[in-house]
Amino acid sequence: MTTFKITDELIEKIQQLIEQKQNKELTTLLSDLHYADIAEIIHELDTEEGVYIIRLIDAQKTSDVLTELDDDYRENILKNLSAKEIADEIIELDTDDAVDIISELPEDRKTEVISHIKDVEHAKDIVDLLRYDEDTAGGLMAKELVKVNENWNVLKCVKEMREQAAHVTRVHSIYVVDDNDVLKGRLSLKDLLTTSTRSEVKDIYIPKVDYVYVTDTAEEVAHIMSKYDLEAIPVVDEMKRLVGRITIDDVVDVIREEAEKDYQLAAGITNDVEADDNIWKLTKARLPWLLIGMFGGLGAASIINGFQDTMMVYPILLIFIPLIQATAGNVGVQSSAIIVQGLANNSIDGELIKRLLKEFLLGLINGGTIAGIVILVSHFAFKAEYLVSITVAIALITVIVNAAVIGTFIPILLHKRGIDPAVATGPFITTSNDVLGILIYFFIAKMILGF
Amino acid sequence: MTTFKITDELIEKIQQLIEQKQNKELTTLLSDLHYADIAEIIHELDTEEGVYIIRLIDAQKTSDVLTELDDDYRENILKNLSAKEIADEIIELDTDDAVDIISELPEDRKTEVISHIKDVEHAKDIVDLLRYDEDTAGGLMAKELVKVNENWNVLKCVKEMREQAAHVTRVHSIYVVDDNDVLKGRLSLKDLLTTSTRSEVKDIYIPKVDYVYVTDTAEEVAHIMSKYDLEAIPVVDEMKRLVGRITIDDVVDVIREEAEKDYQLAAGITNDVEADDNIWKLTKARLPWLLIGMFGGLGAASIINGFQDTMMVYPILLIFIPLIQATAGNVGVQSSAIIVQGLANNSIDGELIKRLLKEFLLGLINGGTIAGIVILVSHFAFKAEYLVSITVAIALITVIVNAAVIGTFIPILLHKRGIDPAVATGPFITTSNDVLGILIYFFIAKMILGF
Repeated sequence: MTTFKITDELIEKIQQLIEQKQNKELTTLLSDLHYADIAEIIHELDTEEGVYIIRLIDAQKTSDVLTELDDDYRENILKNLSAKEIADEIIELDTDDAVDIISELPEDRKTEVISHIKDVEHAKDIVDLLRYDEDTAGGLMAKELVKVNENWNVLKCVKEMREQAAHVTRVHSIYVVDDNDVLKGRLSLKDLLTTSTRSEVKDIYIPKVDYVYVTDTAEEVAHIMSKYDLEAIPVVDEMKRLVGRITIDDVVDVIREEAEKDYQLAAGITNDVEADDNIWKLTKARLPWLLIGMFGGLGAASIINGFQDTMMVYPILLIFIPLIQATAGNVGVQSSAIIVQGLANNSIDGELIKRLLKEFLLGLINGGTIAGIVILVSHFAFKAEYLVSITVAIALITVIVNAAVIGTFIPILLHKRGIDPAVATGPFITTSNDVLGILIYFFIAKMILGF
Repeated sequence: MTTFKITDELIEKIQQLIEQKQNKELTTLLSDLHYADIAEIIHELDTEEGVYIIRLIDAQKTSDVLTELDDDYRENILKNLSAKEIADEIIELDTDDAVDIISELPEDRKTEVISHIKDVEHAKDIVDLLRYDEDTAGGLMAKELVKVNENWNVLKCVKEMREQAAHVTRVHSIYVVDDNDVLKGRLSLKDLLTTSTRSEVKDIYIPKVDYVYVTDTAEEVAHIMSKYDLEAIPVVDEMKRLVGRITIDDVVDVIREEAEKDYQLAAGITNDVEADDNIWKLTKARLPWLLIGMFGGLGAASIINGFQDTMMVYPILLIFIPLIQATAGNVGVQSSAIIVQGLANNSIDGELIKRLLKEFLLGLINGGTIAGIVILVSHFAFKAEYLVSITVAIALITVIVNAAVIGTFIPILLHKRGIDPAVATGPFITTSNDVLGILIYFFIAKMILGF
């Protein structure tokens, strides 16, 4: 497939067509494009131009465009649309997407928009979904699904399903419920294609069905769906009544966002920022971590300051500070990243003590190798005294082992206390290992060189 | 759903049952579990126990278990199975999963295993798929799909589909081809449920269909499928003939691995390692990056060594080295991470010069804030001379701006040259910014303090 590529010429052409109100040409041009591509185009236009396109193009297409827009852009565009116009867009969407948009509106606008949704069933479903926290299964699910009663026969099934399928964008599974709407199992589409129409549902359905509760977290849902390779999963309430279904495309976003969040935390960026955000938002996301690093640096400064006497006797010790610091930081980040990722994938098991022992051994191997090289360089290149080289080598090994153990221990501890271990990566772990590393260095120097 | 939780008791019980060869009880116990859960259990057992389970349980289930195992575990288990036994497992799998397993075998075992696959069509498909690089659409696709000829009517369609569907685990889309097997469009299952059986395919099919070429990269496929929310995509050859289809569950793995790889690179870990890998593998993944950091540290050492005279005149300058270094490293990682993530999501556009200007401004804001605090601390807490505090402040601003610009520039440059920009994050960018930061610091000190 030749992927759609946004070009400056295309954007200019669209801006020109908007300015000249060439609606017919504009409609033709855009109608060939996928909604995800139109969303990309709108990201390049200003708000008025975006609103112009949303108003011009059929709501059947623009409703999907709205769901694809970044939050900021969507907010700006929705501000410029009337409640009636927003309702017209929302009517075209599945309930989960509709709720995503409505939930971003101010409280009074919500009510106004919902009052314009004429289909009472659709409005009811949306209001229902507004109750759930967006980070739970309830917040991810849609009300559109195909379900059949266990007491029906296949003929009645197919008839009812044709009816229901008209409201469902993609049919994944056919869920089987009893008279109280309690989830009993599922029928696969394949079975339906290959079974005689005279069979009864209760004789052919598969009773083994994975499901989640409305209150399960989005991460749990993502974990279950990706572990068991599910493309859709039914959602039940506390009475096991079928209340919705979640599809894999919604979960792909959760998985990606989860991974990106960990990555950003490791790199010292809070909030979900993107390269194209404005400078103020980027500063807000980045400055706090730099300040942590700054306080670490100032802490290190006062440690070195406290050893001023040493500086006079063994000035050569000071040239190895960057080496000690960089090594401590690097090891800490490595150890914590591996644990954080393991925790995210649920692949960490076994005892804490065994894991710490392993990191200890790893630290000894890595530390020994690096200390060996450094002792040679220190002796031959920097002509350092014998005892100074020994000091640097022992300090390196100690610092590496220490950083490895801390980098492993802290994320596991945080995880056990229910805190996201990813906050313990990046600048946080680097800074504490920096300061601790320098402290260890001077302490060992004091012991060996005895000043 | 109450998620399956592996416990020490369960593992012990299973080990006991294996030792006592209690096959009946073992089968009952495991038959209730999902294949992904059995794979988790096998990860806790030794190779012989794993082989015992694979041999004991029906191939219909264990074949899926094999696909879920980590590469190392699978390799060990396959070594202990005969070619015939492997073939029996593979027969149960879809072609894409079958190829994933066969492609890991040594060349002569491959031939032997394939010779045991009695279904010639299945064997042909597998051999076909072995041709493709695993990081391409061809390497991801399966041969199992449902396709109909544009010249059929719906009745013939349904009849043929029932036949085809028996070989396909999940029916996503029905692809429409012409007499030469060239992809023409698709039929949705929903259409099929709601259309009269007398219609002709060519009158009801949707000609707009997304597809990828066999040679497209796995990342391209992942990008297209997640951008356009596709659950399956057909794969065509150079003549646009339909040769396979890729489902979203395979792509979810690609997306996750992509994100994890970037994260690991940023944290200074090469290869795809996990916390549970052995020490040797972990050392191999971590030591190279620590060595880069070490050479950086030694570089910094010789820079400081070169300014020995200064050390004597202004020893207080030395206590700020960790601060300069940590700040340079943190800023560099932040800037590069934001760009790398933007590049991975295809959300980076606009001119390079504008982006560098933005980072320059960001650096000024962050640098100004930090320098302001540090100048106060340096003056009041460390009682540094006026000119020394000024030196540290100016150096901090310069170092931050420099690190921000370099952190932005290098990933973009690498990306333009077709190199994965993620390699430029983590220890690599930290180390170069460390060294450069210290160089800038001493250079500015020299200019201001004039030694």
